[in-house]
Amino acid sequence: TVVDLNCDLGEGFGIWQLGDDDALLDVVTSANVACGFHAGDPATLRRVTARAVESGVVIGAQVSYRDLAGFGRRFIDVPAAELADDIVYQLGALDGFARIAGDRVRYVKPHGALYNAIVDHEEQAAAVAAAVYDYDPELAVLGLPGSQWLRHAAAVGLTTVSEAFADRAYTARGSLVSRREPGAVLDDPDRIADRCVRMVRTGLITSVTGTDVEVRPRSICVHGDTPGAVRIARLVRDRLTALDIVPTAFA
Amino acid sequence: TVVDLNCDLGEGFGIWQLGDDDALLDVVTSANVACGFHAGDPATLRRVTARAVESGVVIGAQVSYRDLAGFGRRFIDVPAAELADDIVYQLGALDGFARIAGDRVRYVKPHGALYNAIVDHEEQAAAVAAAVYDYDPELAVLGLPGSQWLRHAAAVGLTTVSEAFADRAYTARGSLVSRREPGAVLDDPDRIADRCVRMVRTGLITSVTGTDVEVRPRSICVHGDTPGAVRIARLVRDRLTALDIVPTAFA
Amino acid sequence: TVVDLNCDLGEGFGIWQLGDDDALLDVVTSANVACGFHAGDPATLRRVTARAVESGVVIGAQVSYRDLAGFGRRFIDVPAAELADDIVYQLGALDGFARIAGDRVRYVKPHGALYNAIVDHEEQAAAVAAAVYDYDPELAVLGLPGSQWLRHAAAVGLTTVSEAFADRAYTARGSLVSRREPGAVLDDPDRIADRCVRMVRTGLITSVTGTDVEVRPRSICVHGDTPGAVRIARLVRDRLTALDIVPTAFA
Amino acid sequence: TVVDLNCDLGEGFGIWQLGDDDALLDVVTSANVACGFHAGDPATLRRVTARAVESGVVIGAQVSYRDLAGFGRRFIDVPAAELADDIVYQLGALDGFARIAGDRVRYVKPHGALYNAIVDHEEQAAAVAAAVYDYDPELAVLGLPGSQWLRHAAAVGLTTVSEAFADRAYTARGSLVSRREPGAVLDDPDRIADRCVRMVRTGLITSVTGTDVEVRPRSICVHGDTPGAVRIARLVRDRLTALDIVPTAFA
Repeated sequence: TVVDLNCDLGEGFGIWQLGDDDALLDVVTSANVACGFHAGDPATLRRVTARAVESGVVIGAQVSYRDLAGFGRRFIDVPAAELADDIVYQLGALDGFARIAGDRVRYVKPHGALYNAIVDHEEQAAAVAAAVYDYDPELAVLGLPGSQWLRHAAAVGLTTVSEAFADRAYTARGSLVSRREPGAVLDDPDRIADRCVRMVRTGLITSVTGTDVEVRPRSICVHGDTPGAVRIARLVRDRLTALDIVPTAFA
Repeated sequence: TVVDLNCDLGEGFGIWQLGDDDALLDVVTSANVACGFHAGDPATLRRVTARAVESGVVIGAQVSYRDLAGFGRRFIDVPAAELADDIVYQLGALDGFARIAGDRVRYVKPHGALYNAIVDHEEQAAAVAAAVYDYDPELAVLGLPGSQWLRHAAAVGLTTVSEAFADRAYTARGSLVSRREPGAVLDDPDRIADRCVRMVRTGLITSVTGTDVEVRPRSICVHGDTPGAVRIARLVRDRLTALDIVPTAFA
Repeated sequence: TVVDLNCDLGEGFGIWQLGDDDALLDVVTSANVACGFHAGDPATLRRVTARAVESGVVIGAQVSYRDLAGFGRRFIDVPAAELADDIVYQLGALDGFARIAGDRVRYVKPHGALYNAIVDHEEQAAAVAAAVYDYDPELAVLGLPGSQWLRHAAAVGLTTVSEAFADRAYTARGSLVSRREPGAVLDDPDRIADRCVRMVRTGLITSVTGTDVEVRPRSICVHGDTPGAVRIARLVRDRLTALDIVPTAFA
Repeated sequence: TVVDLNCDLGEGFGIWQLGDDDALLDVVTSANVACGFHAGDPATLRRVTARAVESGVVIGAQVSYRDLAGFGRRFIDVPAAELADDIVYQLGALDGFARIAGDRVRYVKPHGALYNAIVDHEEQAAAVAAAVYDYDPELAVLGLPGSQWLRHAAAVGLTTVSEAFADRAYTARGSLVSRREPGAVLDDPDRIADRCVRMVRTGLITSVTGTDVEVRPRSICVHGDTPGAVRIARLVRDRLTALDIVPTAFA
């Protein structure tokens, strides 16, 4: 049994901070680094990539719709070709910093509304997959099991990795409950840690309807945008480690 | 005698067009491609880099202050470290498209107010030079002879290339007359072509005070943002070619 | 029989121009002025509002999703409360210039993807209507007959005005054919002028399926983003005037 | 003896928060509300203006260079006419929300690098003053005593109000020590409160060289971007109130 812990990082912009990047880099094994379209100014990318490499954390590109004002959380009906170009732009921008830091971008995880859209949106899913492949066919892609995103990525020949969310509620069909719904984000540390242990051992997660959903995650996404979230992430890591499941990167 | 012709390209943004990129790619040997901070949306970068490679034109990064509203023509007092990060971001973003097109970014030419600032501004000049070197020490840099920019670039070990402007007025000390001044941009095609022939043959250009300035350009910058400008660029190329000076890239 | 001619104006941004604002101000009676979210930098707003007042053209606010890169042509799933606030921001910003010019914003016409979305999208339609009413209940609103936008605007007590498009293809149910479809924009001047005369006289327009749609426009939208478009706008005005239908503003 | 307490508010953007707007609205008498160019998304402007009116706090427009990435802290060499238009745009945008909240913008205080620039920069100072006057000649303006900003504002007929900073170090000539210098921001609560009491009673403040500078503030600027800053602001208010100097707005 092997599992990775991934987390969104570098999500400040200019003067504004979000989350505790340094604390998280001691917890996770893969860093989904914002690329400037929903968050992540260049100085932040420089700093986070440097510290990720120092900490032995693998760098992934957290690509997004172009939407600073909405933090990438609003679906945008971008035509496929434009979306692909937006993805390449972000990948290149982050990769420059990753290479200066001594590594390179090793995987891609779409952010926010784009992540949710390409669970089902064929055209956008295919566009993102094509863009990643064009940029570097060696990149892995991280996403929701059963999503069009992973299906299209696999179809073009990319390595796909399934993830589950430590603190997000799931629908019975295995998609995430929208952040605009109540109860979308869990906050009880012990319950979250229990979920994580169970999903690693059995591949199952309990949905909002009470039925189990099969997720079989190779990676678990933890959050770090609040002090409480950092403590939860540490707890998840500690609980897994106590069971001899040492978080290990996939890329 | 060998000289390159460089031109700013990819300076549209979204729906807005500026200049005739395709026409220019038949004239110049080096394309200074906008990187998204003063102009140049991702779709434009994809298209221009692809066509540059098809046309055998060398791709350079036209890096800028972050200033879409001002087209990068306004000095911004960016702290050095932030400026360096802004440069790396732009370099990486453009390079992704250049590599997909089958080549890579081969040189850097700062744009607009940044170009003018780092003629004299030591701190910003050093920051841009350091950023270019960090990103790729094989990159050449294009700039004004005698500028702090070329001096700092040379000091860190980058290859420096001097350019002169076909249609810009020069002060007696060899800097460009500000675009906010009258007469900053020449518009008589024959006079411009004559200037170019003279600067290639003798290394000299006549300043606004009537005295000669030594420029010895390895590259001449032509403009292409108006139909008239494209005709002038063609005329410059034709006049040089007629004298057996076939424009040749430097990088 | 009375009809207004409206046109999108002020849709440049910074160095980038789009359309011939001055030429259009001699043709139309109502100017839908961009407010900075899809186009329209402050200097453009100052200039266009001043010239509109000089020309006796009524100023309307062409409010949009926040999307410079996509020119407001991409649907964005903005939550209703945020959308309402985006509308108020744009209204206030334009109104400042209109008042300096000696008039004020007199009506609101949503732009691009927002215009199309609120034909059907109840939540966004209601949000825009509420925002307009909050800002100034005396404002008129311009839109597609039968749209949720006009329905919600009427429900809160705003004056609603129906428009038809001179050069856009209509579906059989009276909505606009998407710009992403072929044939969405007509380009034959005489056919366009004939359509306009017919819609003013009979209230009818022929849809892409050949059936008539009832539009009864109090205003006709002409375009001005190409030299050809300006000529068409003039032709429409001339044809109407020749029939003693002198374009007259509604607000 | 009468003095106002002003504070920067509304300086978040989208998901990013900065400062505790609600806490500050219980302390200050005048709120310098960000207008969207350095911070302040529309939803924030709606919320802050509504709560300011509820709290009886006067609303001012904290206008800035267009620079979200730099939080308006970087000098931009904007041509005067463009700067004036940027100011009008921001004033109108904020005023819309202030009017919906039941009041209106009553004064203007430039932010960050613009504030510092127009202490000396004649052209920009005159441009901002002209823009404010054009928008509404009844607006008061808040600034540094002796600044070109206040001089030009007075020259066009605006009411000028002098302020001093509770926690910023002063040079011997009465300007602020740059934030890029060490010691630019004081952090000892008691020392700050003592300074405030002294400047209200005597009009004097001690500069970094030890000499006194005459400031005679009608308003004192407190900060609120950290929990400590809010405590300091409260302490300043309490110390003044204990001396029967009840903070009172100027506009």
